[in-house]
Amino acid sequence: MPEEQLAPRGFRFSTTEAGIRKTGGADLVLIVSDAPASAAGTFTNNRACAAPVTLSSKHLRQSRGRAWVIVANAGNANCATPNAMKVAEATAAAAAKLAAVKPAEVLVASTGVIGVPMEVTQIPSALPQAFRDLDAHKWQEAAAAILTTDTRSKIARRDCGPARVLGFAKGAGMIHPRMGPPHATMLAFIVTDARIAPPNLQKITSAAVSRTFNCISVDGDTSTNDTVFVLANGAAGNVPEARIAKAIEEVMLDLAKAIAADGEGARRLVKVEVTGARNDAEADTVARAIGNSPLVKTAIAGGDPNWGRILSAAGASGAPIDPTKVAITLQGVPVCRKGVALDFNESSLGYAMGANREVRVDVSLGRGKKKAVFWTCDLTEGYIRINASYRT
Amino acid sequence: MPEEQLAPRGFRFSTTEAGIRKTGGADLVLIVSDAPASAAGTFTNNRACAAPVTLSSKHLRQSRGRAWVIVANAGNANCATPNAMKVAEATAAAAAKLAAVKPAEVLVASTGVIGVPMEVTQIPSALPQAFRDLDAHKWQEAAAAILTTDTRSKIARRDCGPARVLGFAKGAGMIHPRMGPPHATMLAFIVTDARIAPPNLQKITSAAVSRTFNCISVDGDTSTNDTVFVLANGAAGNVPEARIAKAIEEVMLDLAKAIAADGEGARRLVKVEVTGARNDAEADTVARAIGNSPLVKTAIAGGDPNWGRILSAAGASGAPIDPTKVAITLQGVPVCRKGVALDFNESSLGYAMGANREVRVDVSLGRGKKKAVFWTCDLTEGYIRINASYRT
Repeated sequence: MPEEQLAPRGFRFSTTEAGIRKTGGADLVLIVSDAPASAAGTFTNNRACAAPVTLSSKHLRQSRGRAWVIVANAGNANCATPNAMKVAEATAAAAAKLAAVKPAEVLVASTGVIGVPMEVTQIPSALPQAFRDLDAHKWQEAAAAILTTDTRSKIARRDCGPARVLGFAKGAGMIHPRMGPPHATMLAFIVTDARIAPPNLQKITSAAVSRTFNCISVDGDTSTNDTVFVLANGAAGNVPEARIAKAIEEVMLDLAKAIAADGEGARRLVKVEVTGARNDAEADTVARAIGNSPLVKTAIAGGDPNWGRILSAAGASGAPIDPTKVAITLQGVPVCRKGVALDFNESSLGYAMGANREVRVDVSLGRGKKKAVFWTCDLTEGYIRINASYRT
Repeated sequence: MPEEQLAPRGFRFSTTEAGIRKTGGADLVLIVSDAPASAAGTFTNNRACAAPVTLSSKHLRQSRGRAWVIVANAGNANCATPNAMKVAEATAAAAAKLAAVKPAEVLVASTGVIGVPMEVTQIPSALPQAFRDLDAHKWQEAAAAILTTDTRSKIARRDCGPARVLGFAKGAGMIHPRMGPPHATMLAFIVTDARIAPPNLQKITSAAVSRTFNCISVDGDTSTNDTVFVLANGAAGNVPEARIAKAIEEVMLDLAKAIAADGEGARRLVKVEVTGARNDAEADTVARAIGNSPLVKTAIAGGDPNWGRILSAAGASGAPIDPTKVAITLQGVPVCRKGVALDFNESSLGYAMGANREVRVDVSLGRGKKKAVFWTCDLTEGYIRINASYRT
């Protein structure tokens, strides 16, 4: 196996068909570290969060940021059912027993339909086989097994001196993560063999999530199950912290962009960059409002350089912008300056937007020096088809 | 003409083809009162608001709530163009001259594409004919001429003792009005022959708008041009203020619901009612989050009783709800209690949702006694088709 396909040292992976996914196929992912790993997590801030979110958050506190095992399933969110917490707890307990570790050293995550009960024994009874199948090479299968409406796997990796960082993620709909510390349904699991102390790993994770996964949106709906886990088992020894932090953030950004690009029904990734804001919050508010506007997203789907919708979304964002200072550039072409129309060739710009897999929207507010970047996708009839059809 | 087709006394209407609408047809609406009318308005809070919004707001202040004339056009928002304010001012000045009133006694409103310049003379040159064509019976034509992507006119009326209240409105996309006082592109014009002093009319208007037009959404995008005008010319004399206020609010609610029901691509009106909130703001936040969720709206389009999306939207609203206290009823059928699934017949409920033009979503938060109602529509492929096609 070539070097670039090797996982970080000391991690093994497996996938199992536990019968959770209605459509069949592998739906259970197991990640096990051969040594106790520093563990960090961020979770959805949805008040109706799923049981695995509540339990994993508690486990991270109890273990003071140590974990050996991640158990993740697709096909059922394990959320808003009478026995959701029992399912999560039984899963962690069964995995802990098989790994000979404490339950608090097991992290769990789920994605799928909300409100449909699972049998408490369903995941635990599949875990023995999952443990038998563990293999250092099976991370690609694991990346595939957690997908739901995704059309492709999302995998990213970076090398960082002797250490490797590998991440995989899922998510295509109900995507607008706003995760708090040791608090998307996006799931992302990142493993590295660098050595990092738990508090530092949490700090690195929270900062990186705020600039990556928390800056994407498919539909503006924040899930009950969004979860990012980072495990660092130290098998490759020490690496300068700034470098490993950068590598982890780069892996997260690759994954976050891959989620936005694979949004339900999406044909294009959209990068919204807002500059000239008075402060970070203002830049973020405007970028998020533009990236979440159905009218902006449908215009991009139609290859329509309808910048008026961008200006309107910025104006309605709640940020105290001055429209007469706003400049807008679409795919590098200036279309609006001082809040009014510029002459530009609409048909060639429309063609350029339509021909590209990535569309750039740059908005300058002319009020200050702060900026924000937000990633989204175009909004097509495919999104409606996927979500207006009966639950799968 | 039967009584129920008579406009309030002392108002005349006309429609003209001024060549603003690319697709042709009447695009200019004139409403003239035969006596000076008390005038009230609410306008979009979009910072990138259109010139007619800025000018009419100023006119209402300058005239201390008096107006004779409303000039409205469809086909161009008169927003974000170098000469937008000149167009608005020239329109008001020309109408004032023809009506022999002051420019500040003329109110203007526009709807259509943003950022496309108009000729300053375009509306003024059509106004003489518009004034010649004024007629007390032409309000149905007027209600039709302001439509854009609407599929039908929105008209409502109430009688209130001797006084009549008549309103018409347009709006199908970019609908999430959040209007402030003497501050949607929804436009609504309401005329009554009741006598009401200007400050009272503004108070009645602002209160009624906050409970009607400000409680609807099609796509969550707040327009640059949303405007409600209410004129009361006193031709029918005095009416108890509480009664006329009620009639005005009823007319607004009819119009607001008609806008939500005719949302771009919509097949169903959706009524979201949140009860058991700790305070009004909490109830409003949750109702608005559910009504603006693409996943809730696509589920309703698909006749899918997927209440998990409703719970998730409530949980992500930002309101500090406790999911274990939440109960959800869909079309009168309890589907979730204490935050977990109830047994219900999914296929018959799905059928009931699909067979109705109006779907009811009732959410009880179990935290207090406050409630809020929000109106929206389902989200279908038609919305994408309308908005991803090139501008018309």
